[in-house]
Amino acid sequence: MNRETYELMENYMRSCMGDSAHDQEHIYRVLYNALDIAKTEENVNYDVLIAACLLHDIGRREQFDNPALCHAKVGGDKAYRFLTEHGFAADYAEEVRQCIRTHRYRRDAQPQSLEARILFDADKLDVAGAIGIARTLVYKGAVSEPLYSVSPDREVLSGENDTLPSFFQEYKYKLEKLYSSFYTKRAAELAGERQQSAVDFYNALYREVSRPYQNGKNELEKRLE
Amino acid sequence: MNRETYELMENYMRSCMGDSAHDQEHIYRVLYNALDIAKTEENVNYDVLIAACLLHDIGRREQFDNPALCHAKVGGDKAYRFLTEHGFAADYAEEVRQCIRTHRYRRDAQPQSLEARILFDADKLDVAGAIGIARTLVYKGAVSEPLYSVSPDREVLSGENDTLPSFFQEYKYKLEKLYSSFYTKRAAELAGERQQSAVDFYNALYREVSRPYQNGKNELEKRLE
Repeated sequence: MNRETYELMENYMRSCMGDSAHDQEHIYRVLYNALDIAKTEENVNYDVLIAACLLHDIGRREQFDNPALCHAKVGGDKAYRFLTEHGFAADYAEEVRQCIRTHRYRRDAQPQSLEARILFDADKLDVAGAIGIARTLVYKGAVSEPLYSVSPDREVLSGENDTLPSFFQEYKYKLEKLYSSFYTKRAAELAGERQQSAVDFYNALYREVSRPYQNGKNELEKRLE
Repeated sequence: MNRETYELMENYMRSCMGDSAHDQEHIYRVLYNALDIAKTEENVNYDVLIAACLLHDIGRREQFDNPALCHAKVGGDKAYRFLTEHGFAADYAEEVRQCIRTHRYRRDAQPQSLEARILFDADKLDVAGAIGIARTLVYKGAVSEPLYSVSPDREVLSGENDTLPSFFQEYKYKLEKLYSSFYTKRAAELAGERQQSAVDFYNALYREVSRPYQNGKNELEKRLE
């Protein structure tokens, strides 16, 4: 890819993400992860891969404004339009669209091309390990969801089989299970290296918050006449 | 403390915190931590301690609406007014006010009474370890601050000597240093047990995010003509 094309796409990505610096850094982490994974694969089309990485989340704002929309579908269509309007071939724009459309976990839209699989894995890597924990907690803060739910008799729920949204619920439902869902060997290896950090953090947090409730309820009962 | 008094204060606390469930759970963790610490101290006035724990953050909304206000000062004054208006003795209300006023780290307002020190420590414990990491990340999400800053030549900054607000900056500036600031032996011991989880998480996150930037920049340069 030539530098001018890269900068054209980068600027478009930035204009779509607004001034949200941390969302932009996710894009660069995904791009860098993808280039790392690509090194271990053969016949990667870098023009497709780099464009797909840069543009994969440009439909986020539309989904935020209307949760019925899927940012992968909207983003793919926006990328196709942007590329064809800027003189890129329709075949190329279509390949980029397909990568973006399938980067989200969905049974009915799984990544087909090598570049689509690399993007999928690079994006999922950013939900693995400590960075996955950190991004999920930041998201919970942005949407005002709690760290955990508490049962009617004041016990901290672990998140397992928990139906109310919370960090623990998302950890058990999604983060804990993602390590077996990678397409490429390199991504699975990188995710594996990160896994223990996430497990350790969840366990430490659960221990830290559940103990005070267990002891505290009894201590409080003793002090109330 | 009798149960009716506890419920009166608990209801007032809840009315001040709105429907923000996770803020309320912070109050209970602080109360439970305080009762744990109190077990190892002598001559604790539980009527003062329980009231101060329940009411210590009731000035948060005022500080949120006007950051020039200090929630510890506002909260102490609100608690004093609430207690005297509900028939509690002025001396008692004043003791509670002093605890609340000094629960925040400030050179010019340090906790004097045993109950004030226990509240201070119980509140600081909720910034130690994994729970401190989790609460800080949730807060960063709520105020839209990034995980880390990136230097002009695209290196992830560690947070050390960093001036822009970010999670790494707050970790280095505040979270990393709090373990020596406890008044009671029990709180220092509990915080010490949690410390390694926080250190491990920061190190894992820094490693996970800085490596892709180091490698990614070079890989990208190779792919741009």
